[in-house]
Amino acid sequence: MLPGLVAPPSNRQMFLALLTDFGLTDPYVGVMKSVILSVAPGATVVDLTHELPPQDIRAGAFALRAAWPYLPPQAVVCAVVDPGVGTSRRPVALELGDEETTRSLVCPDNGLAAALLDTAPVRAAVTLDNPAFHLPKVSTTFHGRDLFAPVAAHLAAGRALAEVGSPLAATALAPLLWPQPRRSDHGWEVTVLYQDRFGNLITNLPAGSLEPSANWRVVELAKAGLSRSARSAPLRATFAAVEPGEAVAYWGSSGYLELAIRNGSAAEDWNLGVGAELRVVKVELSRSAGDDRR
Amino acid sequence: MLPGLVAPPSNRQMFLALLTDFGLTDPYVGVMKSVILSVAPGATVVDLTHELPPQDIRAGAFALRAAWPYLPPQAVVCAVVDPGVGTSRRPVALELGDEETTRSLVCPDNGLAAALLDTAPVRAAVTLDNPAFHLPKVSTTFHGRDLFAPVAAHLAAGRALAEVGSPLAATALAPLLWPQPRRSDHGWEVTVLYQDRFGNLITNLPAGSLEPSANWRVVELAKAGLSRSARSAPLRATFAAVEPGEAVAYWGSSGYLELAIRNGSAAEDWNLGVGAELRVVKVELSRSAGDDRR
Amino acid sequence: MLPGLVAPPSNRQMFLALLTDFGLTDPYVGVMKSVILSVAPGATVVDLTHELPPQDIRAGAFALRAAWPYLPPQAVVCAVVDPGVGTSRRPVALELGDEETTRSLVCPDNGLAAALLDTAPVRAAVTLDNPAFHLPKVSTTFHGRDLFAPVAAHLAAGRALAEVGSPLAATALAPLLWPQPRRSDHGWEVTVLYQDRFGNLITNLPAGSLEPSANWRVVELAKAGLSRSARSAPLRATFAAVEPGEAVAYWGSSGYLELAIRNGSAAEDWNLGVGAELRVVKVELSRSAGDDRR
Repeated sequence: MLPGLVAPPSNRQMFLALLTDFGLTDPYVGVMKSVILSVAPGATVVDLTHELPPQDIRAGAFALRAAWPYLPPQAVVCAVVDPGVGTSRRPVALELGDEETTRSLVCPDNGLAAALLDTAPVRAAVTLDNPAFHLPKVSTTFHGRDLFAPVAAHLAAGRALAEVGSPLAATALAPLLWPQPRRSDHGWEVTVLYQDRFGNLITNLPAGSLEPSANWRVVELAKAGLSRSARSAPLRATFAAVEPGEAVAYWGSSGYLELAIRNGSAAEDWNLGVGAELRVVKVELSRSAGDDRR
Repeated sequence: MLPGLVAPPSNRQMFLALLTDFGLTDPYVGVMKSVILSVAPGATVVDLTHELPPQDIRAGAFALRAAWPYLPPQAVVCAVVDPGVGTSRRPVALELGDEETTRSLVCPDNGLAAALLDTAPVRAAVTLDNPAFHLPKVSTTFHGRDLFAPVAAHLAAGRALAEVGSPLAATALAPLLWPQPRRSDHGWEVTVLYQDRFGNLITNLPAGSLEPSANWRVVELAKAGLSRSARSAPLRATFAAVEPGEAVAYWGSSGYLELAIRNGSAAEDWNLGVGAELRVVKVELSRSAGDDRR
Repeated sequence: MLPGLVAPPSNRQMFLALLTDFGLTDPYVGVMKSVILSVAPGATVVDLTHELPPQDIRAGAFALRAAWPYLPPQAVVCAVVDPGVGTSRRPVALELGDEETTRSLVCPDNGLAAALLDTAPVRAAVTLDNPAFHLPKVSTTFHGRDLFAPVAAHLAAGRALAEVGSPLAATALAPLLWPQPRRSDHGWEVTVLYQDRFGNLITNLPAGSLEPSANWRVVELAKAGLSRSARSAPLRATFAAVEPGEAVAYWGSSGYLELAIRNGSAAEDWNLGVGAELRVVKVELSRSAGDDRR
C-alpha cells in the first residue's frame, strides 16, 4: 500500500526528531513512532518535546529553533502543534541548509516553520499533497499519525522532497508568531518568549544585540524608571556570578537573553510569564552598586 | 545465565513497544529498557505510554487497542499495569494476526490482553512459566523488570512463543473490563472509556455503529429528554466543523465516537470523566437548528 | 571540529543512558540526544529519568544506583543534576567494574558518582579537561549539552577514558549525600531516601541487614514506643501479603527496605516524605497479633 522503502546509503543514519503538544499521557506519540518505524525500520527517533502547552504554536516554534543547530546533518524533524487540523491549513515540508548539512522539517504551515527561516537558507519547500506517502486512510483529527509521521519517515529513509509534494515558495509560508525586540532610547524593550521548567524566562533579544559592558540591567517594565522599588537584574556571564537567590540576566544556551534567579524561579519571584515585557537598559556605574536586589 | 541470544534474520527489525503505569519520574521504565537491551542489543524500543493512571487496567487496555493496528509487523508489546504483582495472577504472552503480520503481547493476565481479542485471530497463547527466560532473581514487586521485559526481549530477538511458556487457551484469559454500548429505542447508551490530554472524551461506541445521517447528537444523560437545558453535540466529520468553543462529536482517530469542545476541553466543560454515560440519539431536522449549544 | 568517530567493533552496541533533572517539557533532553547522535550515529540512547526534583542530587544518586546493576555491559551513563554548573565544580568520568562488565559514568562531581563506589571497583577516573571532546563553544549554563553529552557519546563510541581527561583519584570524588542507617538497641534507625510515583517510601536500609524473622516491624518514629497509636507495618515478602489498604514493609526491587500501602500511598497515608526517619524493631509475637493497623 505504502511506497516501498528506499534503502538508505549504508553510511547514512536515518534520524527523525519529534516535537508535539500531544503529551506523554496518551498513546498518540507512541503511535506516531510505530508508524515511522513501520515505514523506516531501524530509524533513530528522538523526542525534542511533547509537553508543549496544548496548541501553543509559539512555544513550539521557540523549542524548534533552540534545538535546530544541534541536530545531526540530514535530520528530519516532524513538528506537530496543530490547532487547525481538519481545516484548510496546509501541511508542508522544507529543506534548510547547504550541501553538507541539509535538515528537513515536516509540519502544519502555521508559524512553526517560520522560526527557522533566518537560521539557514531554504533549499526547497513543498505542500504535502501526494497521498501516496500518507496512510491509506487519513483521519480528520490526527494528521500527526496519518500524514506527518509517514511523510517524515519517507524523507528520513531517503525519498526526495519533490516526491512527497508540490513546490511552494518559502515566502508563502505562514509568518512567525513572536514579536521582535524594539530599540528604545536607553536600550531595548523585550518580550518573554518562553518559560522553562526551572522558571527561567527567555526573552526575544538575540545574543549579540548588546555591546559588551558590565552595566546592562534587565528591569521590570511597570517600574522601569529605575526607582528604588523597581526590580532589576545585572547582565552577567552566568547565573553562578550572583549569590543563590539573586536575580541575574545572561545570554542563555538557546541564544537569547534569559532572566533567572540562581537556585530559584524568576517566573515565580518576579511573577512574570510568557508575553511579559521587560526593559534592558545601561545604568551608570555609580548607581549599580548596592542596587542588585529589589 | 540467560539463554543465548538467537540472532534475528538480518532483514528483521527487533521492535518492542512498552506500555505501563510506571510513570517517567522514577527510573523503573529506564531499568526495563536496560534489561531489554541487555538481552536484545540494538533492538528498537518505543514507548506507547507510561503515564496511565496508576493500576488502571481499563485505560491500559484502551491505549493498547488504539495503538495496536499501527505497530510494525512482528512487533512485541510489553504491557505492564499490574496491581496483582506478587499474587497468583498469571503472566502470559500471546501471538495475534496472520502469516504476514504476527504481533505479540506480553502482560499480566488481568484484562489487558482481552482488549485485542476481536482485532485479530489468536495464533497462540502461553503462561510464562519458563524461568530460563526470566532474570536469575525475580523480585515480588517488579515483574516488569524481572519477568516481562526479558521475555519480551527474547521474543523480539526471535525466540518462539512455545519456548517461553506452556500453552494456554485464549478462552481462559481474563475478560475485558469495559462495558459494551447498549441499543436503546432512539439510538445508543454509551460509556466514556478514556479521557485524553486535550479533555476529549472517548466512548465505547465503535465506528460503523450509526447509519450515515446529519441528525445524530450526543446528549447528556441526566437531561436526555432533549429539553432546552440538556447539553448536546452534533455528530460531524471533525471538530473543525464547528466554531471554536462549541461541542462536537466525531469518529475519533482511535476508532470510537469522541466528544470534544473545539479548542477546549469537553471533560471540563461538560464536567464528565471516565465511566460517564451519554446518549446518542437521532433528532428531527426541525429541532436541531439553533440547538447546537447549551 | 570534533575528533573523528572511532568505529566501534561491529559486535558492540553503543549504549548510552541519560539521567537528569531537566524534565521533559523543555527541549533540553532532546538537544542532548541530538548532540549524542551527531557524535555517535546509530547509538542506542535510553532515558533512566529526567523528572528528578530540580537540583536534587540525592534523588539522582539513588535512581542511578537503583538502575546501575541492570545496565548492559559497556553502558555509558550521562548523569546531569548540576546546581553548580558555571562554578568550579569538576566534570568527571569513571569506569567501574571488571573485564567483562565495565560501565562508565559521566557527570558533575557533586555526589552522584559516590553512590556507585561500593557497587563495583573503580577502574579509572578522570577530570574532563580535554576540550577537544566538548562542543566548540561551551556555554556557562548547559554543560549537559556542551560537555557531558559529547564526552559520553565519544566514550560509548569507543574512545578511552584517558583520552577525554586527566587522571583523578577515586578518593578525591565528592562524598555521598545520604545518611547511613544507624543500629539501635532494638534494631535500626532508618531514613527515607526516595519516594516513588506510587507513594512507596524507600529507606536507606540495604537488603540483608536484618536476620530472617516474621517479627520485624517498621514503626513511626514520633510514637516509636509502640503504643497503641503508633503506626507500624510488618515486614513481609511483598505487599500482596497484606490486604488492600494495609501498610507493609518489604525488601524493595531497588535493594532497600520499602514502606508501602497495598493499592495505596504510604507517603500520603503516613504523611511522610524524603528525609523522614523511621524505626525498624523486632516485636514480641504476642504483641504483633491485631497490631498490624494503626
